[in-house]
Amino acid sequence: MKRIAFLLLAVATLAGVGAYMANASGQSAGESSPIYGVKIPAGYREWKVIAVANLLIPGKVDQVRAQVGNDIAYEAFQKGTLPFPDGSIIAAIHWNRVPSEYNDKVLADAFPGAQSFVVSSRMNVQFMVKDSKKYAETGGWGFADFTGEKPGDKALHETCFPCHIPAKDRDFVFTHYAP
Amino acid sequence: MKRIAFLLLAVATLAGVGAYMANASGQSAGESSPIYGVKIPAGYREWKVIAVANLLIPGKVDQVRAQVGNDIAYEAFQKGTLPFPDGSIIAAIHWNRVPSEYNDKVLADAFPGAQSFVVSSRMNVQFMVKDSKKYAETGGWGFADFTGEKPGDKALHETCFPCHIPAKDRDFVFTHYAP
Repeated sequence: MKRIAFLLLAVATLAGVGAYMANASGQSAGESSPIYGVKIPAGYREWKVIAVANLLIPGKVDQVRAQVGNDIAYEAFQKGTLPFPDGSIIAAIHWNRVPSEYNDKVLADAFPGAQSFVVSSRMNVQFMVKDSKKYAETGGWGFADFTGEKPGDKALHETCFPCHIPAKDRDFVFTHYAP
Repeated sequence: MKRIAFLLLAVATLAGVGAYMANASGQSAGESSPIYGVKIPAGYREWKVIAVANLLIPGKVDQVRAQVGNDIAYEAFQKGTLPFPDGSIIAAIHWNRVPSEYNDKVLADAFPGAQSFVVSSRMNVQFMVKDSKKYAETGGWGFADFTGEKPGDKALHETCFPCHIPAKDRDFVFTHYAP
């Protein structure tokens, strides 16, 4: 996708922002995502695993990730239901990854060259919340990106939906259920 | 750890095998692990995530993994409780990993060189079941390794406990809770 397309989509997304801001009343600053007004859902860390993944960007990102879902989202993933029903929430937990010297040492005899990578620390967590009416202009999804308890800024959240556009035929969701 | 130590431990483990075999009555062949008599626990795929990881062995293994736990195990991981209480069950789900050309294409503009890896298929799943009396001779843990519904053979299961010995100070568990 060309960069100009990204920018155009960002502008289009911004045009729909006013309505959500107006609805995002009664929520403390620093707790809800800009544009979408999404808060960290209670208990998401204990949701069911949809899939796991890596994202590696040389010199920048070295992550192992888990996508987890609330019961509505999890069932939709399992059954392949599209579009996702309202109430679906997907959380993508991104952890920084490090080689485990401890594990590599244990494996060395049986598996020479083995490389074990494990979680070092949490980087961020992203949410997609399905509400086909509230978020009609962004494919029915509200987005959020938190580092610790702190949501990213508006500029960051302007990139969420445009980046998900290519997955339109899967209701804007990249992740597949891992059997 | 030297290979000889592995072998000695395997022999030591074998010496304790008889008792478990005798207890493993009434369980269908092909459904319980040899030595330990551990069956696939119902609903484990929906247990809570303890951590995620990679294991890479050039030309042999290219995996992304999730360790999940039942409620007893999960709570122990969170609180750092050692030893794990009886009733704890840990499942390690191992998926084969592939690069996602689809995701890489989407990321190409914003993040040149990005490499996204996702799950392709299930390789196997391993279980550790804590029962300090039943499995007293293997650190209180019973082990199992299933590919699909089929448990691995006895020789494979003879390697489980010896490999976990180095993690003795963490009750034979390598995985740490990912915050």
